[in-house]
Amino acid sequence: MSLLVTGTVGIDTVHTPAGSVERVPGGSCAYFAAAASFHAPVRLVAAVGGDWPGEHRRLLEGFANLSMEGLEVRPAGTTFAWGGRYLDDMNRRETLFTELGVLAEDPPTVPAAYRDSDIIFLANTHPTEQAAMLGQLPARRLVVADTMDLWIRTTRPELEALLARVDGLMLNDSEARQLTDMGNAISAGRKILQLGPSFVVVKKGEHGCILVHRDGVAALPAYPAEAEHVVDPTGAGDSFAGGFMGHIASAGQADFRTIQAALAWGTVTASFTIEAFSLDRLARLTRREIDERMKAFQAAVRVG
Amino acid sequence: MSLLVTGTVGIDTVHTPAGSVERVPGGSCAYFAAAASFHAPVRLVAAVGGDWPGEHRRLLEGFANLSMEGLEVRPAGTTFAWGGRYLDDMNRRETLFTELGVLAEDPPTVPAAYRDSDIIFLANTHPTEQAAMLGQLPARRLVVADTMDLWIRTTRPELEALLARVDGLMLNDSEARQLTDMGNAISAGRKILQLGPSFVVVKKGEHGCILVHRDGVAALPAYPAEAEHVVDPTGAGDSFAGGFMGHIASAGQADFRTIQAALAWGTVTASFTIEAFSLDRLARLTRREIDERMKAFQAAVRVG
Repeated sequence: MSLLVTGTVGIDTVHTPAGSVERVPGGSCAYFAAAASFHAPVRLVAAVGGDWPGEHRRLLEGFANLSMEGLEVRPAGTTFAWGGRYLDDMNRRETLFTELGVLAEDPPTVPAAYRDSDIIFLANTHPTEQAAMLGQLPARRLVVADTMDLWIRTTRPELEALLARVDGLMLNDSEARQLTDMGNAISAGRKILQLGPSFVVVKKGEHGCILVHRDGVAALPAYPAEAEHVVDPTGAGDSFAGGFMGHIASAGQADFRTIQAALAWGTVTASFTIEAFSLDRLARLTRREIDERMKAFQAAVRVG
Repeated sequence: MSLLVTGTVGIDTVHTPAGSVERVPGGSCAYFAAAASFHAPVRLVAAVGGDWPGEHRRLLEGFANLSMEGLEVRPAGTTFAWGGRYLDDMNRRETLFTELGVLAEDPPTVPAAYRDSDIIFLANTHPTEQAAMLGQLPARRLVVADTMDLWIRTTRPELEALLARVDGLMLNDSEARQLTDMGNAISAGRKILQLGPSFVVVKKGEHGCILVHRDGVAALPAYPAEAEHVVDPTGAGDSFAGGFMGHIASAGQADFRTIQAALAWGTVTASFTIEAFSLDRLARLTRREIDERMKAFQAAVRVG
């Protein structure tokens, strides 16, 4: 199975109680692909501008298993840039600025060599763009989409049209509530299944995640991290998605049990991302560390 | 091992989006003892007034394994009464009234037949009363206390004195934050360990629980219940504590693994309490239902 992700590669400026960084590698696609690459080969489809720093390219090129052929550099354009600040023990954040740059232009083209990709992750963008991307992916067999409050609020018909065409939806708990008017994550998930997907993953940040699948329900806590190890939550959700989809791609199947197991791999992979700014921790991560932390996670989450 | 609980037996009036009930059985001790009784024999120590309804007594007497010898009826007094209303999908509640009644008088006396009790749960009351109760329990080997925001705010020195004398503390996440000024539950737990206990259980309601123990950390999600099955959250925390301590009593030991397993039994037992008002669901619960739900919980919470 071939895993492909499409979304943003951007330049982030981030302030957290642990410090600040300026113009560092970021974007949903970058975090996803870096995280997924520890589990399966991953193909990245995104666009950046002529201002995209060479050191950002070198960082992404450093991930074995991460194919960059689908990264379009548009010399006349500027790269998506985002600035944010975390407050209150990292549980809340405010956006300081968003410069769309090339994101306001046409979406990127899927290279011919990627057209056989069968496991697709549509990271968060306008649902119409997400849907349009599917037209470029004729071999798709499993499609999972992410979304956000902005699209739920402003483009609900387009989002609902997309949901009819995907196998899975990933969103956070406040978004699930917004989409369904239900505060209970299980009930919200069940309501979303009626819109088309076979499964919904509700991400709850420090409180873990819930899977509502046509064939069952699963729940996990977050990896129990101490405050001093949480440096920057940026990209945690995208890294979770990367570990999750990477596991499904490596398993070569997508039944309930595989998807349930993927939750744990997503959780463990994301737990590294937040230990440093940007992709710094993922850049020096090893598969062995992931496996060791998985054992620690299994030991911490034993039922009975 | 002999399990004893001391706390309140009261008369509750509760309004939830699912309905309302007036003057029904309630109180931390009642919920705890009913829940614990499915796991081990439990002794209840509490005081009620002359107004305590006979039907409330009959309900508690209906639980096999629940010893009522420690229930003091004070004919001239009135029973503790509480009224509350749940808002917002049951996640928030407001107190409508509190009538202390006999709770404002001397604490109850531990009967001579109970003085060999070795596993003690001090349900939430004034920390000085909790500490005084220990003087009546010379055979105590494992003491776990519950507390609440009121005591953290108003009687911190007394609470800290109590913490130096207990083995475990149970509190919810907002209380853990209040006690330690740390929003991260693991870090808050570690800080509380420095005050004396060997372990802390942080209850997070619909988000599950976290155990911070000198010998390790554990985390569990809540039992994944749909909104339509949540009728009344009152007593969920006390039922969790009852299932938790009941399992420890039945295991006859209190090492890290036993305490970790006890979290799951607490979770599963409490998941029944919220399915009906008052003790109604517990009153018709069977051990077989608990065991079946434990299997469902194990299936929903599998790591990798």
